[in-house]
Amino acid sequence: MPGLRVGHAGMRAATDDRSGALTGSTVVLAPPGGAVAGVDVRGAAPGTRETDLLDPRRMVQRVHAVLLTGGSAYGLAAADGVMAGLEADGVGFDVRPGPEHAGPAWVVPIVPAAVVFDLGRGGDFAARPDAATGLAAYRATTGPAGGGAVGQGVVGAGTGAVVGGLKGGIGTASAVLESGAVVAALVVLNAAGSAVHPPTGELYGARFGLPGEFADLGPPDAGELAAARDAGLPRGAAMGALRATTLSVLATDLTLSKAECAVLAAMGADGLARAVNPVHTLVDGDTSFALSTTARPAPGQAGLHELLAVGADCVTRAIVYAVLAADPVRTPVGDWPSYRSLFPSTVVARP
Amino acid sequence: MPGLRVGHAGMRAATDDRSGALTGSTVVLAPPGGAVAGVDVRGAAPGTRETDLLDPRRMVQRVHAVLLTGGSAYGLAAADGVMAGLEADGVGFDVRPGPEHAGPAWVVPIVPAAVVFDLGRGGDFAARPDAATGLAAYRATTGPAGGGAVGQGVVGAGTGAVVGGLKGGIGTASAVLESGAVVAALVVLNAAGSAVHPPTGELYGARFGLPGEFADLGPPDAGELAAARDAGLPRGAAMGALRATTLSVLATDLTLSKAECAVLAAMGADGLARAVNPVHTLVDGDTSFALSTTARPAPGQAGLHELLAVGADCVTRAIVYAVLAADPVRTPVGDWPSYRSLFPSTVVARP
Repeated sequence: MPGLRVGHAGMRAATDDRSGALTGSTVVLAPPGGAVAGVDVRGAAPGTRETDLLDPRRMVQRVHAVLLTGGSAYGLAAADGVMAGLEADGVGFDVRPGPEHAGPAWVVPIVPAAVVFDLGRGGDFAARPDAATGLAAYRATTGPAGGGAVGQGVVGAGTGAVVGGLKGGIGTASAVLESGAVVAALVVLNAAGSAVHPPTGELYGARFGLPGEFADLGPPDAGELAAARDAGLPRGAAMGALRATTLSVLATDLTLSKAECAVLAAMGADGLARAVNPVHTLVDGDTSFALSTTARPAPGQAGLHELLAVGADCVTRAIVYAVLAADPVRTPVGDWPSYRSLFPSTVVARP
Repeated sequence: MPGLRVGHAGMRAATDDRSGALTGSTVVLAPPGGAVAGVDVRGAAPGTRETDLLDPRRMVQRVHAVLLTGGSAYGLAAADGVMAGLEADGVGFDVRPGPEHAGPAWVVPIVPAAVVFDLGRGGDFAARPDAATGLAAYRATTGPAGGGAVGQGVVGAGTGAVVGGLKGGIGTASAVLESGAVVAALVVLNAAGSAVHPPTGELYGARFGLPGEFADLGPPDAGELAAARDAGLPRGAAMGALRATTLSVLATDLTLSKAECAVLAAMGADGLARAVNPVHTLVDGDTSFALSTTARPAPGQAGLHELLAVGADCVTRAIVYAVLAADPVRTPVGDWPSYRSLFPSTVVARP
């Protein structure tokens, strides 16, 4: 996605000593002047920060970064570190007391944030992203790696992610619109529900791919499916101890208003609904953000129509990639096989 | 207010060296089991945390504390410290992985927060409430002082507060309803608009007092009024460099639903509108919270009707007390006289 950069900071114990961390933070960094933004909160148990200012009735027009993080409500501390990094780089909302003000920049970086529940996944309830984790994720966006491919799988805020008893994580997808504009999605897949259709073992989201995109992704063979069923996988949503949350950021280079960004953010919820079932449960705090870098002019009505539909599909496709990119992780509080380790026959020719 | 405790932590340079802090944090602490809560965001420039979960459609029913803080968006870091204090005391939403879980409590404290803009008021742009400030405010609620009278004036989140060119601060007011139930308000008065009616020098909110409450508060004499006018005081809201925000917490011991708390919170905005003009401007992030300790049963419709009307007046009256309790503060970026120093003739017999 031109103009945006992504940085991950994962906290993952090097050894499986059953007392470690399995969490992290991911920053989506806007251009220095900020991006127009919107949000859609759909899950029953959200944990958020600086989302009220995204209401189109509020004055602040642009945000400087979006933070997605593990650690449940504790993880909101990671935003302190993202703000510190942006302030040190002079990026933020200008609050100089007057035009005559000299000296260091007086800026307030605007960093909306949302959390996923992954507390204790690595065994240590106290291992959570903090300001240092947020700063590390921000710094990861500003290095050379920020210009390359965005990391997927068990990285950043997806480090401790689980989906329906399988390993979850980070996924991304993008599409080029007729105008040449781009829409892209980044998802932290950590849902109480399942991304897998239990009777067939197929990924719900796979049918929403671009032409041919998931052609090499077949149904699992009968033996694998029977073995998974015997293991109680994939699991649907269980109430009680289980807590989850899937987050997404949809971004475009088209110029959108704050209200249009809020509509685009709502498409993230729809894209999630197509890829996970059940979705937006009582134990999910699903929250979707949308960003407009405004590098291209505003779309006409037809262009906006296309953007919204293709954007929803980007979230759905990003969830497929999150599942495929996840690797198996053994931890003290349970084993989460990956989709690919459970159903190796499904992937015909994927690297 | 029975069941709730308030703690302040102010950051105020001991000497007027023109490079100090003038900010702070205030915590309203619920009973250990939490309080039902609601929020109303009305200003154009809010800075908030954990407000989405207060939507009546969201699952979390109770909050453990509300943080009001200076520092603009940076000040949201103070909530990290309040959460740390609550966690250390075992207070929070129970997230044990199962009933068999042993060992330390797995809790996630729910601490909605909102900020006022006071950056640079003491001269040092980098002096802001952080996690340590939030923890100190939390600790101040748990000491013996927490059981006594609530501090007003230039304390806690009101340390750097300004209102219409005069010193703002913290104010409180309460009322006993016909049923014997209590409603109480705490306000951080830091508004772009004025609490003073410029032509007369009277406080807008004074006419909403209980019978006789503000009887000793007369209009200023003509000489004082003329002198104030010559000094350009009170100032109305100026756009540009000025940034503000007034926060309030309304609390009752009546049992309310989350939706009813949201309605009570909206009364906070109405109470503010009666006491400050202009209000909810483009540079205010005015946010009101409401808490129900549920110590008494739910009110009937007449009781709810009374609660809402009296609650709004409590916020208006708390603003009068905030103005009267403020003391003059000299800082490098300007002098803010207090209402009482500007109009000493108004207060006939107040201590």
